[in-house]
Amino acid sequence: MMKILNLGLGLMMAASLFSCNNGSDKNKNSGNGALSSNAAEQVYVAPGEHDDYYAFISGGYSGNLLVYGLPSGRMFKEIPVFSQFPTSGYGYSEETKPMLNTSHGFIPWGDAHHPDISQTDGVIDGRWVFINENNTPRIARIDLETFETVEVIEVPNSAGNHSSSFVTENTEYVVAGTRFSVPIPQQDISIKEYKGKFKGTLSFIKVDEDSGNMEIKFQLMMPGFNYDLSHPGRGQSHGWFFFTTYNTEEANSLLEVNASQNDKDFIAAVNWKKIEEYVNNGGGEMMPAEYAHNLYDHNTHTATSTMKKEVLMVNPTEVPGAVYFMPTPKSPHGVDVSPDGQYIIGNGKLSANLTVHSFPKMLEAIKNEKFDGEAYGIPILDFEEILAGVVEQAGLGPLHSEFDDKGNAYTTFFISSEVVKWKLDTWEVVDRKPTYYSPGHLTIPGGNSRDPDGKYMFVMNKITKDRYLPVGPELEHSAQLYDISGDKMELISDFPTHGEPHYAAAIKADKVAPKSKKFYKLAENTHPYAAKNEGETKVVRDGNIVHVYMTTIRSHFSPDNIEGIKVGDKVYFHITNLEQDFDVPHGFAMIGQNNSELLIMPGQTKTSVWEPTKVGVWPFYCTDFCSALHQEMQGYIRVSPKDSDIELDWSLGDDAEE
Amino acid sequence: MMKILNLGLGLMMAASLFSCNNGSDKNKNSGNGALSSNAAEQVYVAPGEHDDYYAFISGGYSGNLLVYGLPSGRMFKEIPVFSQFPTSGYGYSEETKPMLNTSHGFIPWGDAHHPDISQTDGVIDGRWVFINENNTPRIARIDLETFETVEVIEVPNSAGNHSSSFVTENTEYVVAGTRFSVPIPQQDISIKEYKGKFKGTLSFIKVDEDSGNMEIKFQLMMPGFNYDLSHPGRGQSHGWFFFTTYNTEEANSLLEVNASQNDKDFIAAVNWKKIEEYVNNGGGEMMPAEYAHNLYDHNTHTATSTMKKEVLMVNPTEVPGAVYFMPTPKSPHGVDVSPDGQYIIGNGKLSANLTVHSFPKMLEAIKNEKFDGEAYGIPILDFEEILAGVVEQAGLGPLHSEFDDKGNAYTTFFISSEVVKWKLDTWEVVDRKPTYYSPGHLTIPGGNSRDPDGKYMFVMNKITKDRYLPVGPELEHSAQLYDISGDKMELISDFPTHGEPHYAAAIKADKVAPKSKKFYKLAENTHPYAAKNEGETKVVRDGNIVHVYMTTIRSHFSPDNIEGIKVGDKVYFHITNLEQDFDVPHGFAMIGQNNSELLIMPGQTKTSVWEPTKVGVWPFYCTDFCSALHQEMQGYIRVSPKDSDIELDWSLGDDAEE
Repeated sequence: MMKILNLGLGLMMAASLFSCNNGSDKNKNSGNGALSSNAAEQVYVAPGEHDDYYAFISGGYSGNLLVYGLPSGRMFKEIPVFSQFPTSGYGYSEETKPMLNTSHGFIPWGDAHHPDISQTDGVIDGRWVFINENNTPRIARIDLETFETVEVIEVPNSAGNHSSSFVTENTEYVVAGTRFSVPIPQQDISIKEYKGKFKGTLSFIKVDEDSGNMEIKFQLMMPGFNYDLSHPGRGQSHGWFFFTTYNTEEANSLLEVNASQNDKDFIAAVNWKKIEEYVNNGGGEMMPAEYAHNLYDHNTHTATSTMKKEVLMVNPTEVPGAVYFMPTPKSPHGVDVSPDGQYIIGNGKLSANLTVHSFPKMLEAIKNEKFDGEAYGIPILDFEEILAGVVEQAGLGPLHSEFDDKGNAYTTFFISSEVVKWKLDTWEVVDRKPTYYSPGHLTIPGGNSRDPDGKYMFVMNKITKDRYLPVGPELEHSAQLYDISGDKMELISDFPTHGEPHYAAAIKADKVAPKSKKFYKLAENTHPYAAKNEGETKVVRDGNIVHVYMTTIRSHFSPDNIEGIKVGDKVYFHITNLEQDFDVPHGFAMIGQNNSELLIMPGQTKTSVWEPTKVGVWPFYCTDFCSALHQEMQGYIRVSPKDSDIELDWSLGDDAEE
Repeated sequence: MMKILNLGLGLMMAASLFSCNNGSDKNKNSGNGALSSNAAEQVYVAPGEHDDYYAFISGGYSGNLLVYGLPSGRMFKEIPVFSQFPTSGYGYSEETKPMLNTSHGFIPWGDAHHPDISQTDGVIDGRWVFINENNTPRIARIDLETFETVEVIEVPNSAGNHSSSFVTENTEYVVAGTRFSVPIPQQDISIKEYKGKFKGTLSFIKVDEDSGNMEIKFQLMMPGFNYDLSHPGRGQSHGWFFFTTYNTEEANSLLEVNASQNDKDFIAAVNWKKIEEYVNNGGGEMMPAEYAHNLYDHNTHTATSTMKKEVLMVNPTEVPGAVYFMPTPKSPHGVDVSPDGQYIIGNGKLSANLTVHSFPKMLEAIKNEKFDGEAYGIPILDFEEILAGVVEQAGLGPLHSEFDDKGNAYTTFFISSEVVKWKLDTWEVVDRKPTYYSPGHLTIPGGNSRDPDGKYMFVMNKITKDRYLPVGPELEHSAQLYDISGDKMELISDFPTHGEPHYAAAIKADKVAPKSKKFYKLAENTHPYAAKNEGETKVVRDGNIVHVYMTTIRSHFSPDNIEGIKVGDKVYFHITNLEQDFDVPHGFAMIGQNNSELLIMPGQTKTSVWEPTKVGVWPFYCTDFCSALHQEMQGYIRVSPKDSDIELDWSLGDDAEE
């Protein structure tokens, strides 16, 4: 056990020393060293003014996607994606429950990691944001007209979907990759048989260019390594995709030691265009694989879930020239591709140096068969032959790199807790700034594209400690915003992030704001239980099932008095918000409602089920303060005993029957 | 129906015109009129510095409580209270599910309204925050050492617990009040029998001065009005509590019209000290009433839920001198008490004037029996006899008032969308500023106390429209922060709020920050399934129930390989985080886990249930990026068929058995 303790304690001591230097209350101003002199003005967005950029920051274990403004660092919205969200009833309402369906059944939560914005010609276009779920492998698509999750696709033959959800330069594909290799197909074998028997898959998911709808085109059956992160080729390297691996040792236990043995692991270079051609010509084999595909429709305001049954599997050794391994020190985490597509940066998290691979040299090495052996039939390229350069002694624990518009790269170093700016081509470090504390990802708007911005960069720090007023043992994580327009990075603010931020995708506001939808048109509402005016409201019994067709408008429900409901009934409240104006939602809540409230946008219909268990008269009310008479927006439902013979009756107002 | 349409359209047109003036994109800078010239510097909190105040802002239909800093407007934390919270597993983990138990069963969400900080001698003391749930009536208590919800008590004989959760000046009581009157006890009668047969209750909940634990001391059976808001007397009026009513018309349908008929409704003045004496001498009657009382323990890290069976009900007409009605124009919403306890302000939401009642005059009127009739046996005080003054033509739709340390009051006007500053004693308006848009509550730190602060005031606006970059049909609400230290209010910033903010309670940072707990001591952990070191980890089968005693420490689980689990088993993962350092949580997630992940703080044990349905080898991992080797923090569980004879086996590392 000595070895284990050594490594474990060593890392713990490093973290602990570090926190003593920078994390104590006595050094409250430790973040000010790099502070811009007019930082306050730089981040201030005056009332009535708007931010310049949207930042879409993942919520990690919240399962959601957060929308922030830059430079203010203000959070405008939490978009529920993979998790139930009591605020709007997402994942509780009948219409949205199917969004959380999987081959493992209904899963009420997810671990959201890496948002990526759709691209056209290698430039982010602001149509959709994709984001991956790490735990029960899935990818979601968020529509940037409505800022709602409109699609979730499960990824079969995968476990821990981490190297996702990055897109190719025309959004031809969004990728996924298994972080934890598993038996494929799943089977009852011992964990001790891991080496050789467990496999990883990399999935290429086709995105329809008009609708954005996803469909798994093929999966690649890969060796049983851990696949960590990925990025697409672009420009000269368009057509390729790069995935980091670790645990090439194929250990199945105590990976902090056993998967840290090899000096180099790999970046897998995948020529997806070649494989696409192969499968378009009938290559690959269909294999049984159960996975859910969930779609949300903005006219019916309803999600549907379909269970798929098979997937096309490709053995990479049967497609010559399709997959190569690039040796990369050491347990690389991020892999990042320069804006021109020439450089592939491997961020070896147990390394002090950054290894930069050359795409042209890689092509040359492939052509000349400069190989250094193979792994499970996949050629390993010779390290020296493909090396573009090394950023020497850049820091400890590099995780991720992004790029600006002036030929610079920016890399986060987790262990030495800093962000380092260095020059592409010369590999020279030109600036470094401490971060507070232990940065994970960093983001520059357009960072994963041909056309990165050069104004702001922010790092998402994993350890918060004393950055904000203390709030007990559990803290939010924290981001730091830098002005990168000058020679040196200037820290301008700290802002807390919600959930655990992994990657963020950011975009100029004018690419998204003009097409943001303000409300849903009632005329386009095709929900089967919509009541499009008060005349269509009604209550219908079918055995013990009762459907209430209800409307809301400032400031009443119709109907607002309902009698004849009985204990044991299952009551479906279908609420249509008749408002046709921006920012006039209504809510609906019933006492004892054991799913959730509903928040209904103008023109929308949403449904909540209530199964009354107690005789009495129970109120319902609007949960969103909608007008001066909001408090008056209420109604009552009379619940009679199961065997009562009271007939259904409903009304609005004293004179509703006139 | 004419009447209905008139009023409805009138209010809608007012809202609509208003939004045309102020809400359109063309007037983006409309918020700048009142802007302080050095606003950027005023709200900027530099990296490494801390905010001056905590603001606890309710999340409304999110069910949660949000912690913000002032003046920065940054959100530091979302504390789950009444709703499931996938981020930490609150309401999903075995330990926290009991917190959401009610007499209606498990309720996964709530509508959180009015936080209030505990007080000693009329000054907020920073020990606890109370907050009410409006839908399924409850009050929660949040401990400000851990920032966790530690108690939830249900309020029986109530529906829509809105006039809550304000405390008396030594936190003797926290109150609740029914917003919607109902049959008490509940029974199967027609809604049409509302008038006279439906009742409201006001609940006085005793708070233990050491533990903070709540217990319903008594309920008052009141007429069937709607009880909207409340505030305690203080100083000279300590011992009294004031509750607004509306719908004194006792309408049961279309309240926007039918509950807006009376020129005056009431503020109920309740002498709780007199009633306390009455019940301490055996007064009142126990009545059957089922309600849940849920407590969370920081040593077992576990909540327990107890179902109570009865409550002490008091008929106010049997306690002479205990309850009076103060006539107040018109459908009053907020009722606010001046810092010295002399004035009771009724915010008549359909009025243009503010009515201020005098507490000394009220006592005098009671003594001299200056009554203007009675309602259900409760004396109505003569309006003129108790009037202190009127703030004339202050604005349209007053909702709430708070106070500063210089004898000024600040009132929000929803319809005219402004905040108005006026002088106590002279009732003179001294400043007014537009708000963007339609303010609900406003907050000054210490606002509900003898000792309000005089530096900042913020309003929580209900309509957001164009204040931030657009994010589709559904928007966050928005707050605006004013510097109130000078003669005129100066707007200094807009910040988005999460969920729907109702009231907020704010406090100077130094009253809370020093006692914030950093982590839980492992030695104090008495969770029955805790493993306090790796030697105590084990897997125990009892029929198809399997208990996994697991530990986490940077960066491995123990055990991390488990075999012998079978389809049909119910596996309890009890995860103890062995870390004893600030801000080192670990997470735990299993593929296909159909409850939630767990986020486990240092020293804590949490439990998640997994019911595997598929044969195979399934990974688990840490969901919180905890160290440089976080990605290596994983393990595997082998699931065999139901009838397999594979025995339980577990291990850590290759050499775990050495």
